[in-house]
Amino acid sequence: MLSVSRHSLSIIRKPILCNSSQGYIGRSHLLSISTMSASTSNKIYVAVIGVGLVGSELIEQLLSIPRQTTPFELISLTSSTRTIFDAANPIAPGAAWKSLLAASAQKPDYKTLTEQLAALVAPNQKVAVVDNTSSDDVAALYPAFLEKGISVVTPNKKAYSGDVGLYERILNASKASGARFLNEATVGAGLPVISTLKELVATGDKVVKIEGVFSGTMSYIFNEFSTGKPDGPAFSSIVSIAREKGYTEPHPADDLNGFDVARKLTILSRTISSGSRTQTALPALQSFASVQTASLIPSALEGIPTGDEFISRLPEFDAHFSQLRADASAEDKVLRFVGVVDVAGGIVKAGLEKYSTTHPFATSLGGSDNIIMFHTERYGARPLIVQGAGAGAAVTAMGVLGDLFKLV
Amino acid sequence: MLSVSRHSLSIIRKPILCNSSQGYIGRSHLLSISTMSASTSNKIYVAVIGVGLVGSELIEQLLSIPRQTTPFELISLTSSTRTIFDAANPIAPGAAWKSLLAASAQKPDYKTLTEQLAALVAPNQKVAVVDNTSSDDVAALYPAFLEKGISVVTPNKKAYSGDVGLYERILNASKASGARFLNEATVGAGLPVISTLKELVATGDKVVKIEGVFSGTMSYIFNEFSTGKPDGPAFSSIVSIAREKGYTEPHPADDLNGFDVARKLTILSRTISSGSRTQTALPALQSFASVQTASLIPSALEGIPTGDEFISRLPEFDAHFSQLRADASAEDKVLRFVGVVDVAGGIVKAGLEKYSTTHPFATSLGGSDNIIMFHTERYGARPLIVQGAGAGAAVTAMGVLGDLFKLV
Repeated sequence: MLSVSRHSLSIIRKPILCNSSQGYIGRSHLLSISTMSASTSNKIYVAVIGVGLVGSELIEQLLSIPRQTTPFELISLTSSTRTIFDAANPIAPGAAWKSLLAASAQKPDYKTLTEQLAALVAPNQKVAVVDNTSSDDVAALYPAFLEKGISVVTPNKKAYSGDVGLYERILNASKASGARFLNEATVGAGLPVISTLKELVATGDKVVKIEGVFSGTMSYIFNEFSTGKPDGPAFSSIVSIAREKGYTEPHPADDLNGFDVARKLTILSRTISSGSRTQTALPALQSFASVQTASLIPSALEGIPTGDEFISRLPEFDAHFSQLRADASAEDKVLRFVGVVDVAGGIVKAGLEKYSTTHPFATSLGGSDNIIMFHTERYGARPLIVQGAGAGAAVTAMGVLGDLFKLV
Repeated sequence: MLSVSRHSLSIIRKPILCNSSQGYIGRSHLLSISTMSASTSNKIYVAVIGVGLVGSELIEQLLSIPRQTTPFELISLTSSTRTIFDAANPIAPGAAWKSLLAASAQKPDYKTLTEQLAALVAPNQKVAVVDNTSSDDVAALYPAFLEKGISVVTPNKKAYSGDVGLYERILNASKASGARFLNEATVGAGLPVISTLKELVATGDKVVKIEGVFSGTMSYIFNEFSTGKPDGPAFSSIVSIAREKGYTEPHPADDLNGFDVARKLTILSRTISSGSRTQTALPALQSFASVQTASLIPSALEGIPTGDEFISRLPEFDAHFSQLRADASAEDKVLRFVGVVDVAGGIVKAGLEKYSTTHPFATSLGGSDNIIMFHTERYGARPLIVQGAGAGAAVTAMGVLGDLFKLV
């Protein structure tokens, strides 16, 4: 009932300019007049895929913008089981969107969604999809969205850190149609990391090296484990506490393998290569798997199917990690799991490194903060540093909404 | 000879779309065909006022963008004594722009420039002025530019930190015409400070407090002077060295009075107030002079006319500053000259404060770095931090060029 027929969508394509205030209506009204013809308002139509933690927060932030000033019209929601679409009657601030979605009988259908959104694109009418999932399937749709002029905004790392073929199709589709692909929240969540890197590169600065703690989970674990002293709590106990606090994935190996960091490095590396005016020495990464990643999973624990079993066996390797900590301490250093994009050296790598106890990675870092250092030609003597919470629904959704504002 | 007549400008207003590559020509060609009719290309016309250190660097960065990909056409330069304007023949990458400008017989005439630029504004034709001066006179022109649809990009703090009347005229003119006022480089130069603050506010985060070292000069002086130890070099000797290195203004009192920091705090404070959805407790600052600024100039040295005399008498007050350092050290603290925008408390202040030797202002700061901490509702437990060089021509010009890219 909430989806608009193909017939009424064809009406929407005509650039009818009118006061948009009537487009915002309460739920009961919405249900009763969902067949009214649509009107465009030059606001950006937004379709949200994924209504989990980040998606819900994004929707709340989007709907909290006063209706008088919002540049957005939220016209579609898609969960793993349901979808709603109504360009004529955007979801109003304060609307019970969860109930609306739960009441829908429509199953997700990305082909139809793509067609519905494509039908709205017009010279003065922007349309954007927000993908809040971590799905490879949704990521695979980006080229189709972009080709049709639909911009894509996402915190989902899969596409830009995955197979180079998909990455290149995204670049080409965006270039061909002019629709934008924005993924600030894929690295550092709401922290200005991608935008800062893009600006450095676009304005002609030369990135020498990016070095950082990119995983909130790894940050927490090593901030707790390695403070410069020769001893401290056991590695397994900290991982176990982190898991209980929800800082790790249900299976901690999904953090300790370093793949999350490798994906972020792939995104940064590709952002440099695609924006740089000159050939860089950076390798053309086939995917995030091409990053030199030193996993923290002891080889004896590779492939353990459950997080519980993994946690129960991790203490067998505490002595190993304690020795690493003691060795670092003997050099007055701490251990940090870092990612490095060494543009000059042509190396992209993730792994455990030692840093002086006076280094910002030791002195300034705490909690589950991310910290990213940009060493560039212009920031030559001392790097440009961005630091702060790099995970969490509120700051991730903020990074996504910030990208949406860039489309305005 | 290089300026376009009013007659040929009227031709430009017609939206003639054509290949823009012929618009880029070398100097001799430019001189010979400056009377050819202009063509628009949907690139953004850029007029640069101020060709000093920052202005020259901005022009170089702008012209270093490959002509195939640049979204800009540099059509006018204005120094304190000369001006050139030629919308039909943008200044080409590699052009000897300094010679072009030096060869011009045209004196600066802002009224004519405003009219010339206004004549170029069209629905599909953006026009921007870049003000690289620190002039109050140029700042006073912003409302006139903005009213006519000409966007303004500037590292000049004067307008946004000056009298509230000018500030409000800028806001209103921008709102009325849709032309944008962008001033990223006024705080932290190329560091993402204003853009980060705008995004926090636009996405609905609540800023609790911004606290930072906003002056590169003050950063250098106190990083050298106060390291946590009870003694060290004399205050006057560090100021003297800073002056010799060019880190201070010719008259160091122009740094030590704290006005530069007060101006930056005014800009941040107004950026919060203008973007916030709810009333804040922040005072409506009449100008930067309304900021509670604790000057470091000893009252006996107020009004000393020359920098040389000021420097020669500063040692009389070394004992005073040494005592402050010793007192801080006794508490295991360092001295830093900081700016604070306390949104919750409704206070905007600049002055010398003490920070623990484990605080990032003590551990992470060095050289003449700026560091800015955003304490917000979403970044609750730990602040969002931006750090790096906050002054210098290359990074300031980068901040300006980054703003120009936001117009694309």
